[in-house]
Amino acid sequence: MITYLNLKTIRNMKKLLTLVAVALMSVGTTSAQELANFNFGGRGQQVKSPELNGSKVTFRINARQANQVSLSGNWMEGQRGGVPLTKGENGVWEVTVDTPSPEIYTYNFVVDGVAVNDPQNFMVQRDGTRYLNMLMVPGDRTQNYFEANKRGTVTYKWYDSQILGINRRLTVYTPYEYEKNPKKKYPVLYLLHGAGGDEEAWTSMGRAAQILDNLIEKGLAKPMIVVMPNGNPNQQAAPTLGLPNSQQNFRDPKMANAYVKSLCEEIVPFIEKEFRADAKPEQRAIAGLSMGGGHTITAANLYPAMFDYICPLSAAGSSNAEQVKALKAAGVKLYMICCGTTDFLWDNSVKLDALLTECGLDHIFYKSDGGHIWANWRLYLNDLAPKLFK
Amino acid sequence: MITYLNLKTIRNMKKLLTLVAVALMSVGTTSAQELANFNFGGRGQQVKSPELNGSKVTFRINARQANQVSLSGNWMEGQRGGVPLTKGENGVWEVTVDTPSPEIYTYNFVVDGVAVNDPQNFMVQRDGTRYLNMLMVPGDRTQNYFEANKRGTVTYKWYDSQILGINRRLTVYTPYEYEKNPKKKYPVLYLLHGAGGDEEAWTSMGRAAQILDNLIEKGLAKPMIVVMPNGNPNQQAAPTLGLPNSQQNFRDPKMANAYVKSLCEEIVPFIEKEFRADAKPEQRAIAGLSMGGGHTITAANLYPAMFDYICPLSAAGSSNAEQVKALKAAGVKLYMICCGTTDFLWDNSVKLDALLTECGLDHIFYKSDGGHIWANWRLYLNDLAPKLFK
Repeated sequence: MITYLNLKTIRNMKKLLTLVAVALMSVGTTSAQELANFNFGGRGQQVKSPELNGSKVTFRINARQANQVSLSGNWMEGQRGGVPLTKGENGVWEVTVDTPSPEIYTYNFVVDGVAVNDPQNFMVQRDGTRYLNMLMVPGDRTQNYFEANKRGTVTYKWYDSQILGINRRLTVYTPYEYEKNPKKKYPVLYLLHGAGGDEEAWTSMGRAAQILDNLIEKGLAKPMIVVMPNGNPNQQAAPTLGLPNSQQNFRDPKMANAYVKSLCEEIVPFIEKEFRADAKPEQRAIAGLSMGGGHTITAANLYPAMFDYICPLSAAGSSNAEQVKALKAAGVKLYMICCGTTDFLWDNSVKLDALLTECGLDHIFYKSDGGHIWANWRLYLNDLAPKLFK
Repeated sequence: MITYLNLKTIRNMKKLLTLVAVALMSVGTTSAQELANFNFGGRGQQVKSPELNGSKVTFRINARQANQVSLSGNWMEGQRGGVPLTKGENGVWEVTVDTPSPEIYTYNFVVDGVAVNDPQNFMVQRDGTRYLNMLMVPGDRTQNYFEANKRGTVTYKWYDSQILGINRRLTVYTPYEYEKNPKKKYPVLYLLHGAGGDEEAWTSMGRAAQILDNLIEKGLAKPMIVVMPNGNPNQQAAPTLGLPNSQQNFRDPKMANAYVKSLCEEIVPFIEKEFRADAKPEQRAIAGLSMGGGHTITAANLYPAMFDYICPLSAAGSSNAEQVKALKAAGVKLYMICCGTTDFLWDNSVKLDALLTECGLDHIFYKSDGGHIWANWRLYLNDLAPKLFK
């Protein structure tokens, strides 16, 4: 039951809260929240969820009045409607399932047909317009997805795009050591998201900052700057900022590849001016997933001398022999295709691999299990970053 | 109903999605999302919510199987249990209410007793551990809360605290012009959150970046750096990052005011090294709400020569005559107390006002309507920032 505190309750809590506020000043507990918003939706009774216990994981939600509660997780393939929870005497619903293999998963409850986030789990990723609870299962595969000890800086910056006619936000990661070496220039990885994503996708679902922090801390990857722009040419920024879209007509043939042009002609120079970026092709890499894989291929084709490291991941988009030969002539140092064998864009990667082979361009085709999912894109980033700038 | 796509559906969608992915590369629509997470919880039927129509606002949620749905908004005082929605034939519940006066509000639905975010509204603020949907009502009062045309940079940085024994995250705003004036030094406002908050509170609920952007763009405030640290001494960062808390015993008397010491002895020097900050007392301001107001008062008292602008907002914490006289001797340029007349800490602000008067320290006591709420703290920031560094 949601209730607002009435005035009498507030008055009764006043002394207590004053004490609490003062106590918090020194001990820093974080349970108190803005008074006007004090409500207890599903929180009147504190329950633990999710509770990870080795091979089992338990999910719980307080929902006394609900008729039906189920759990829907992205690891639960083939379970239509999810796994039902059982109601306890105290109104808390619960289910224990096998812990899936180490990875980051997302899930939600379904309460009487409505998707509900787990109110006890504040680890949340935004996927496009949806907020999804995270389940992080530790293990070898996920060790670089947790916070490292030495963490870089994440910056949200805005650049003016003449090509797209709008002011646009981009996310920039600089490594832990960046400020400690005020004269040093760094290589740059341009890391592109897919359809439905935005400039926050790689740092949220992709764990890009954590992956780079860990790889750099372990000496496995070179310290580098990572630039994650917004790849939707009509957007100023992630839709959560509520900014109006560009009024340009991106269907106009004159606007073909407008975003890729903005990336290579505006974003790259902007980054090389605003950050200590090493402005040489051998110090520039580009990687992107799905639509961003298409952007990667297009950028490499339209600007063959710009990036020496090219990594399309689960990519849309295609090349022709002439374009590949131009890349070869430009002296590309790494062309790495990554795709899952059950990806709906698998055939696209196979075709690209065949074309590169046919044109005699040395490359890597990294084939993983699974499909068009963030679990793969994190894996690819973790694998490709150590290969860059060496 | 939540359903996962079965394999046959996925195969059928394959061709379509390939086309969509390619189309998206050029037109940049953002409706497609990660395939593995494709589900249609509450989204099978797209409904618009909230729909703001002048003096009325309509909220809708698709919940065919629910028995009871209500709306709970933080502007709806005294309406216990919220306002009921009515179910339509199509399973969409709906309610139209009077639009509250211009401000940023938060709300959620309550579906069969469980708090549910509005799945159609991806404008969300995090308040401590809860994600709350936003309702932004435009008007004079909120004009500086929307995005400006010229936007500054928001950076998440980490500093090593010897005093607290952990690596800690802080949020830094630099104004739009910062990169355009590579030699210019800027004044700094240290802006502190309250209990339950963290280093993201002021940029999320407080709209600090938008408020500063707008004030600076209009020429009402001086371009300044704003530093928003994490005020919970045991925390490395916002709890959403999943980092372990410090193991130090903050109840140990030796750790009294440990956070304020870290702020003044570690964060201030860190900022003045990492940013082009003007390291003079007359170029430093400190403001904070609730617990952060207590931190503000304590910092001013312990380091009377450090900040020439001191603004405790709805503050916890207290001073004595000796401390105020030391501040007066140090030549404080602005001491501004802000509080709402129905705030549960109102008496605290009245007492502080009386003490400053008694000690002959010129100051402002800005009294607003309302209580201990973000609507007030946004208002105070919007009012105090133009008074700084002049």
